[in-house]
Amino acid sequence: MSAKRDMGRPTALRDLAEVRRWDREVDVIVVGLGAAGACAAIEAKRAGAEVLVLERAGGGGGTSALSTGQLYLGGGTAIQQACGFEDSAEEMYKYLMASCGPNPDEAKIRLFCDHSVEHFSWLVAEGVPFKESFYGEGSYTLTDDCLSYSGNELVHPYPEIAKPAPRGHTVLFDGVESGGVLMQKLVAAVDRSGAVVQANTLVETLVVDPHRRVVGVVARIVGGEQCYRARRGVILTAGGFINNREMVDRYAPELRKCRLRAASDGDDGRGIRMGMAAGGDAIRMGNGCIVLPISPPKILIKGILVNRRGQRFIGEDAYQTTLGEVALLHQAGEIFLIVDDETFARPFAPAEIAAVAESPAELERELGFPEGSLQHTLAVYNEHASRGEDPFFILFPGLLKFFPW
Amino acid sequence: MSAKRDMGRPTALRDLAEVRRWDREVDVIVVGLGAAGACAAIEAKRAGAEVLVLERAGGGGGTSALSTGQLYLGGGTAIQQACGFEDSAEEMYKYLMASCGPNPDEAKIRLFCDHSVEHFSWLVAEGVPFKESFYGEGSYTLTDDCLSYSGNELVHPYPEIAKPAPRGHTVLFDGVESGGVLMQKLVAAVDRSGAVVQANTLVETLVVDPHRRVVGVVARIVGGEQCYRARRGVILTAGGFINNREMVDRYAPELRKCRLRAASDGDDGRGIRMGMAAGGDAIRMGNGCIVLPISPPKILIKGILVNRRGQRFIGEDAYQTTLGEVALLHQAGEIFLIVDDETFARPFAPAEIAAVAESPAELERELGFPEGSLQHTLAVYNEHASRGEDPFFILFPGLLKFFPW
Repeated sequence: MSAKRDMGRPTALRDLAEVRRWDREVDVIVVGLGAAGACAAIEAKRAGAEVLVLERAGGGGGTSALSTGQLYLGGGTAIQQACGFEDSAEEMYKYLMASCGPNPDEAKIRLFCDHSVEHFSWLVAEGVPFKESFYGEGSYTLTDDCLSYSGNELVHPYPEIAKPAPRGHTVLFDGVESGGVLMQKLVAAVDRSGAVVQANTLVETLVVDPHRRVVGVVARIVGGEQCYRARRGVILTAGGFINNREMVDRYAPELRKCRLRAASDGDDGRGIRMGMAAGGDAIRMGNGCIVLPISPPKILIKGILVNRRGQRFIGEDAYQTTLGEVALLHQAGEIFLIVDDETFARPFAPAEIAAVAESPAELERELGFPEGSLQHTLAVYNEHASRGEDPFFILFPGLLKFFPW
Repeated sequence: MSAKRDMGRPTALRDLAEVRRWDREVDVIVVGLGAAGACAAIEAKRAGAEVLVLERAGGGGGTSALSTGQLYLGGGTAIQQACGFEDSAEEMYKYLMASCGPNPDEAKIRLFCDHSVEHFSWLVAEGVPFKESFYGEGSYTLTDDCLSYSGNELVHPYPEIAKPAPRGHTVLFDGVESGGVLMQKLVAAVDRSGAVVQANTLVETLVVDPHRRVVGVVARIVGGEQCYRARRGVILTAGGFINNREMVDRYAPELRKCRLRAASDGDDGRGIRMGMAAGGDAIRMGNGCIVLPISPPKILIKGILVNRRGQRFIGEDAYQTTLGEVALLHQAGEIFLIVDDETFARPFAPAEIAAVAESPAELERELGFPEGSLQHTLAVYNEHASRGEDPFFILFPGLLKFFPW
């Protein structure tokens, strides 16, 4: 087996007997200083532990710092209240249970929802800033606004399942890169907490005792290998694996088609591979967050999304991650947004103009669609839209548009 | 964690130090006597090993005995030649590489194809009977015939990628239950080989030495626990996990919708869970073989498959497993085959008659489809079918039918 193929597999373990000496001893070691690592470190310290955070990069942030800095919080946070939106833990729970796939983890979702207001207050107390404002142009914010619909809450059939509320809470920053602010604040909070952060330290291997209990880590720093003992536990928060070609091939080959990868260099799956080596059971490894936003600007939702057969396949108001999944996994990664002059706007997200035409028939030809396909789709759509209806995807009448072709 | 949730997780391991005595010692232990276990046992014995096969049921057969007894073989087998079909390992390889998903295992497919003729001869030599005949009504045979197209070889775009050949080789039996004959013959071959079969023996745990090497198994028989040493290796062939609710929930929740499960009681995932406990890396756990045949009878392929939006979504000639996957995973498990009086026939596979109507408009209403949806689908289909074309899925002209509605 080649070293390269090994990159897709669990790491080796180090037996305690092989550790000659501990270079350092603490209660809890946190591997990775992204959002999860920061929260874990702060809380472990607060619980009385001596905490050492090991980060492979030159400083904290990780992939969280590259994110849009949007947190899914609800149940009646201060921002939701200030903006006039009613919400409850129960409605949030009902929505998530219905929208998190075929086997949602009920206990985890319950816990997440019941403590969501508390999580928001925790973030604020740690210095993470939010503005008391609502943004209606899309699921992520291009401005310094906070609250947005960052899911399918308003999308059929969810309004019938749970009372909709916007729950995306974006950290205060004028632009999309709010994740940087989130991590700047959380890293500062870790420093204040008294947890010790050691950067430029790549944790490579877990150390196990004869009972296979994890008792420390082996890390690489400039100058060589170090062994750190963790008296009470090691917390792995070393994220995803999208930058590990072998793991993507092995576990999530469908994701190879994604062009832009929102990930730090460190997302090479080492955290997962170490956990697996210690007997951890990695599940849902094929899942990824596949994002394909058509808004902002919101007017583009009035366009019509079709596949290569000229058929509509999803409501145009679908959450960007739902659209991304369906487009990549069910439509071979190729979808088209049809707009007329009145609806056209330059999308914020990267997209190509595939064709421009004067009629549906011409557009079909330009795009290589089957003759009649798009024409019929538009004809049926128009028939219903003229009555303010969409029996296909139950779009809100306000999102429908009559295409006067 | 409850015992029930434990059913979804790797089993415990037994340390060698805890084994007080070996109840039996052999070179190779094979766990499970389905098709894979039988082949492994025969070949291990032939290679000179002392072989013990442990089967939890009262006798060999397993899920293989419940199958249609169809083996994918090609490259120019005696049956292919007798029936006048040309094939080569290279064409078989090209087809499988193109049709086995986004990350096919090239080395394994190459090996499989290069030795396929040899595999066929091996089965014949072990006493597995095949008739020199071709069956054209569907991918599995209702008769005693052997050869059939059991894949997408004839389906667009595969004929352009590889020269099509029928490669489904069904074991001689007059009916669909050829798997019983396959296993009857293979179990007899195991007995002849000199491998020892011990039934009513449930292997529960692997035994590992201090280097984590697997050196034996712990098994449950009537009367208690036994420990068997394997000097040279343990081969796990204890199949799938469709009858383990916790594993399905955990790894393949989409498959919960499947109504009929072609599996023996023993398919509770214990083989996989034991392998994982020993450090085995279980991959593609979300995959299942989801079968949804519309033929035989073949005339039903002339119908039109649509989803709940009245749209065609796949070529009607698609292989039953491709159709099953797309129907379950992309169309929420709900699809409709539209046929007229001329095309109607009672399908062999279970199916419900959802509605009967005199016109597409009436059928739409009966099925609750959006108004105009099916009418437009049929109109576009008819336009093309009248010219002998299907630009949507490139069906063979002979499979197209003009619907005179």
